[in-house]
Amino acid sequence: MLQERNMLRIGLIGAGRIGSVHAKHLASVRQATIVAVFDPLADRAQRIADEHGARIARDWRDIVEADDIDAVVIASSTETHPVVLRHAAQTQKAVYCEKPLASSLSEAHSLHRDLSGQNSRVMLGFNRRFDRNHASVAADVAAGAIGRVQTVQMTSRGPNAIPPASYLKLSGNLFYDKMVHFFDLARWLTGEEAIEVSALGSVIADPVFAEFGDVDTALVTLRMESGALCLIDNARRAVYGYDDRIEVFGTGGLLESSRITEGNVMRIFDDKVLTEGLPKDPMLRMAPSYAASIAAFVEFALGERSAVPGIEDGFRSLVLAEAATRSLAERRNVTVTEILG
Amino acid sequence: MLQERNMLRIGLIGAGRIGSVHAKHLASVRQATIVAVFDPLADRAQRIADEHGARIARDWRDIVEADDIDAVVIASSTETHPVVLRHAAQTQKAVYCEKPLASSLSEAHSLHRDLSGQNSRVMLGFNRRFDRNHASVAADVAAGAIGRVQTVQMTSRGPNAIPPASYLKLSGNLFYDKMVHFFDLARWLTGEEAIEVSALGSVIADPVFAEFGDVDTALVTLRMESGALCLIDNARRAVYGYDDRIEVFGTGGLLESSRITEGNVMRIFDDKVLTEGLPKDPMLRMAPSYAASIAAFVEFALGERSAVPGIEDGFRSLVLAEAATRSLAERRNVTVTEILG
Amino acid sequence: MLQERNMLRIGLIGAGRIGSVHAKHLASVRQATIVAVFDPLADRAQRIADEHGARIARDWRDIVEADDIDAVVIASSTETHPVVLRHAAQTQKAVYCEKPLASSLSEAHSLHRDLSGQNSRVMLGFNRRFDRNHASVAADVAAGAIGRVQTVQMTSRGPNAIPPASYLKLSGNLFYDKMVHFFDLARWLTGEEAIEVSALGSVIADPVFAEFGDVDTALVTLRMESGALCLIDNARRAVYGYDDRIEVFGTGGLLESSRITEGNVMRIFDDKVLTEGLPKDPMLRMAPSYAASIAAFVEFALGERSAVPGIEDGFRSLVLAEAATRSLAERRNVTVTEILG
Amino acid sequence: MLQERNMLRIGLIGAGRIGSVHAKHLASVRQATIVAVFDPLADRAQRIADEHGARIARDWRDIVEADDIDAVVIASSTETHPVVLRHAAQTQKAVYCEKPLASSLSEAHSLHRDLSGQNSRVMLGFNRRFDRNHASVAADVAAGAIGRVQTVQMTSRGPNAIPPASYLKLSGNLFYDKMVHFFDLARWLTGEEAIEVSALGSVIADPVFAEFGDVDTALVTLRMESGALCLIDNARRAVYGYDDRIEVFGTGGLLESSRITEGNVMRIFDDKVLTEGLPKDPMLRMAPSYAASIAAFVEFALGERSAVPGIEDGFRSLVLAEAATRSLAERRNVTVTEILG
Repeated sequence: MLQERNMLRIGLIGAGRIGSVHAKHLASVRQATIVAVFDPLADRAQRIADEHGARIARDWRDIVEADDIDAVVIASSTETHPVVLRHAAQTQKAVYCEKPLASSLSEAHSLHRDLSGQNSRVMLGFNRRFDRNHASVAADVAAGAIGRVQTVQMTSRGPNAIPPASYLKLSGNLFYDKMVHFFDLARWLTGEEAIEVSALGSVIADPVFAEFGDVDTALVTLRMESGALCLIDNARRAVYGYDDRIEVFGTGGLLESSRITEGNVMRIFDDKVLTEGLPKDPMLRMAPSYAASIAAFVEFALGERSAVPGIEDGFRSLVLAEAATRSLAERRNVTVTEILG
Repeated sequence: MLQERNMLRIGLIGAGRIGSVHAKHLASVRQATIVAVFDPLADRAQRIADEHGARIARDWRDIVEADDIDAVVIASSTETHPVVLRHAAQTQKAVYCEKPLASSLSEAHSLHRDLSGQNSRVMLGFNRRFDRNHASVAADVAAGAIGRVQTVQMTSRGPNAIPPASYLKLSGNLFYDKMVHFFDLARWLTGEEAIEVSALGSVIADPVFAEFGDVDTALVTLRMESGALCLIDNARRAVYGYDDRIEVFGTGGLLESSRITEGNVMRIFDDKVLTEGLPKDPMLRMAPSYAASIAAFVEFALGERSAVPGIEDGFRSLVLAEAATRSLAERRNVTVTEILG
Repeated sequence: MLQERNMLRIGLIGAGRIGSVHAKHLASVRQATIVAVFDPLADRAQRIADEHGARIARDWRDIVEADDIDAVVIASSTETHPVVLRHAAQTQKAVYCEKPLASSLSEAHSLHRDLSGQNSRVMLGFNRRFDRNHASVAADVAAGAIGRVQTVQMTSRGPNAIPPASYLKLSGNLFYDKMVHFFDLARWLTGEEAIEVSALGSVIADPVFAEFGDVDTALVTLRMESGALCLIDNARRAVYGYDDRIEVFGTGGLLESSRITEGNVMRIFDDKVLTEGLPKDPMLRMAPSYAASIAAFVEFALGERSAVPGIEDGFRSLVLAEAATRSLAERRNVTVTEILG
Repeated sequence: MLQERNMLRIGLIGAGRIGSVHAKHLASVRQATIVAVFDPLADRAQRIADEHGARIARDWRDIVEADDIDAVVIASSTETHPVVLRHAAQTQKAVYCEKPLASSLSEAHSLHRDLSGQNSRVMLGFNRRFDRNHASVAADVAAGAIGRVQTVQMTSRGPNAIPPASYLKLSGNLFYDKMVHFFDLARWLTGEEAIEVSALGSVIADPVFAEFGDVDTALVTLRMESGALCLIDNARRAVYGYDDRIEVFGTGGLLESSRITEGNVMRIFDDKVLTEGLPKDPMLRMAPSYAASIAAFVEFALGERSAVPGIEDGFRSLVLAEAATRSLAERRNVTVTEILG
């Protein structure tokens, strides 16, 4: 099915912010090329098509069904993921699906039931697993470098800019849209499933979040199978930039993927030392992990690695998002068992 | 009542580990001198009496009632605090009482009812409020430097050594014995009362804690009146030393009282940079705050500052300890209202 | 002379290590394209030509004289710089010349006499001026942020690998080959000329440097016109990686472009804190400055900025390299005046 | 000769700034007590005598000759050191002499000739050897942790305050008064003698230094016996506080005793990270090393360690101060051989 010289031919569905990010990173993956693009907004599709010498598809189905396309990248809005995924699954194309897997837990549940398993050809876009520093911490934990895990702290705040109302309307609440990354990281870092979830949340940074029934600041704690405890500290907005930090504490020591600042200049004046601030644009922090994530997908599509993270991970992270949502509403710990039914 | 030359005459009740710490620090407070010591173990009292040229008291009542004593430092075991405090309160002596205020919430409640108020002469030994770095953060928050508080993270772990069973038997659980400091800090840092508590806890570091019905690792989250959220991450034991870190994130920025390592040497070898580890002895980290706390008490006794933190703070922190204990048992958020009855 | 759509057509002379670096970075400069490559080793030229869709030139003169080439990048070995530069100067093409300007001071002197001046079309490849952090320090100094400069420390060591003998034979001594960057930085950071030079040097890391009459470890101090003092601490080899650090101390404060490590993971074990090491491959540290340097050249060639650093800078840095060489031999301070004659 | 219970009876000569520092630190050395104080300014002597319950001596000779004094601490002005040292040497009392050994090289030379050797009872007050972090670096170098030393960087600047003219008049130039510490550290850190010295110096921070024929900013480089190169970067004044940093680079790695800031609070605002500044009072940085230095002297006087650093070190450091002075004047490298004659 692959082109000569092992060049992976990719169809891109969705040419918005995240679609553009993937397109840009695919341009520097030697073994892949974008051959077709679809977006309901023709302008956006045209721009990417021009830059990559790709054709415009009239419909996402054209991409999923095309004979000259080996792999599909789904970067369309979340509510479209299930139908595209199901269709693509019949073609045996490799599929990269942006997070979250679906906008409702029930859809995610049925996707998981129908499409996961040994032969799944779907990779989920949990880019943070591909952050070089986070991955180094995860590898150390898995290798036993710090013994049994006692607590995991995951802090992620920012950026300063608040998403537009149009985005907030469709993106799901803080737990579904943003914290889903960290539910996934909790499972990945500890190598365990969560069994119990407790959430506190508030609207402090901007009242706009209250309008969508959402919170902008939350602390969620998880108990994992072994008793390891995880904290997720997320804020939709941080005036000081994009702040991402993971700490894993175990019986043998501590690992930290530290916050990253923009530059490396120190200034010492009369009574203070100044170093540089945190990135205002989250992409400055996350671009390398997006690039590594899409590169890993190309490797998978070429048969060089497995489809991890996959549908199971997409589903499990949404189970935890639902448990957190319920915990926040009901002011009690919610078990994973009751969500799974 | 004070001696000539404004020298504060102090009676010390309790000559164990913490009593010795206070005695040592009082030695370098110019305006105070220890004149009498009591401890049920005569040897311990004798040692401190020798070093300070103080007399041995036969009973704690002798100290509380002595005419030549201006102020009392209570460093005896927690269960003795209520009776000594009540007795001392009648003498109008200034009293410094080690945390926690009492070993049960009901005792704390009645002490609070009877002894708190405008004329209280009791200061509580919440030394961490006197940590130079923590205090700098609290002052900045109070001055509005970071706007409205969104989240507070308080991490405290260690030391490596596990307390002896004899201590664990009497000291109360993790929430009452250790986390009580951080319940106090949460109120102090935010300038607000907590209204809701959620706790997760596990035994991971050492099974000895399970024998006492306790946990060694816990994550507790609090919601404060304004909606600000606090995390307390405490572990009874940390193999890597004594680790203490506070972070306050607000709508205007972030403040951190960072972890403190033992020294200031960096070593760069083939593929790594090594800096020095965390203190194995918690006193290396906390000695300055103990010294500042007892010095503040001397200032209070000499009329130079108010009795803060006081009985109200001792009581409120135990209310939160009880709420956390109940939340852990009942797997739900516990409100302060239901504890206060 | 420029192509349609303002695309700068570049001819590359030299396809070795540094030529490949420039080619790679030019590929991501939107307004430039490599159209021809020359290297005496045909294989190297072919590889770059293939990647960039460029033609192979039979001779460097073909590139300098070609009508369809707007700008020339000289990355050939140092001894060829003078003749190529002179030839190119007649064509009014924009020229980017790798450092050092020439392999002897006398050649540099005559190039400076003949080619510098207001209409010079030559930019020198002092990439470190384009290091984001160094440039931020230089801008602060120029803006008066730290008052009058007292001392500048420039430390640069590494990498671990020792250059092959073939390179050492032609590259000039430590002062001409490596320290020339820092002579340039000293002038740039202070905005002044040096007037006096003192050098100490030793062979410690590897006896191979003694075979070439060179040193591998050197400390050079400079006095600038205002009295500001500069240190350059260079070593040809550092087992711990590539270490680059600049500190400027003035009457108003201190600025530091700090050493940069490879990653951002911290590990705390029993008695130590480990963070990540320095880059083994200097390009990990320097790639962004090479990219910014060649991008600035494209801007110059398109008329969007001036040719700085230029021939004057290339010449002045070699004057200081010669002064250091003489100081090392004669064990005395050498003035710039005596070198300039 | 020692008192009962092994209590070392100390006579203090000089009750100025540095005498007070030693007196304060002696107060917390359990095995020593100050029994007599002399200072030409009676007030200063009285204050220390009162605090320590010591008697006032009418003359420094009374202290040197007293039968009830075991050890002498010389903290009088530098020009008095030689006569006091010679007199004390005849009594076999242990002597701690503040740096520098003498105010002229010739005096230091004859003291070295007459008083050094196996039975010397004189320790020099090079407190920085007792800085915990510097000492850790020195121990690592001595243990071969970084192989052969290539370069040593010693930076010391500050404080902000400029010494009064009365001090500058008598204290010797920058090399004799301040840099003498770092000449000593260079020998101590490398375990080698210096063989060649080069100095650059300027007056930049304050013209007052020019009035005394001195410089306020200097870079001195040394070549040691093995070829190792040392830099000393000293400034009399640094507006940003007291800055002390040592870096040793060797064939096996790098060691740094890093600069130390005042506190441990980080503040992150819109576009910057602020940490705390450097100490304005040098004693905040140096008190522990002064304390350790005088404690080591007590150990020596009690026979528990040798008299290191001693007269040899005091003399050798002045040889280098003289070499630097001559190098600055004559603009050439000066060898130790020519100074030693």
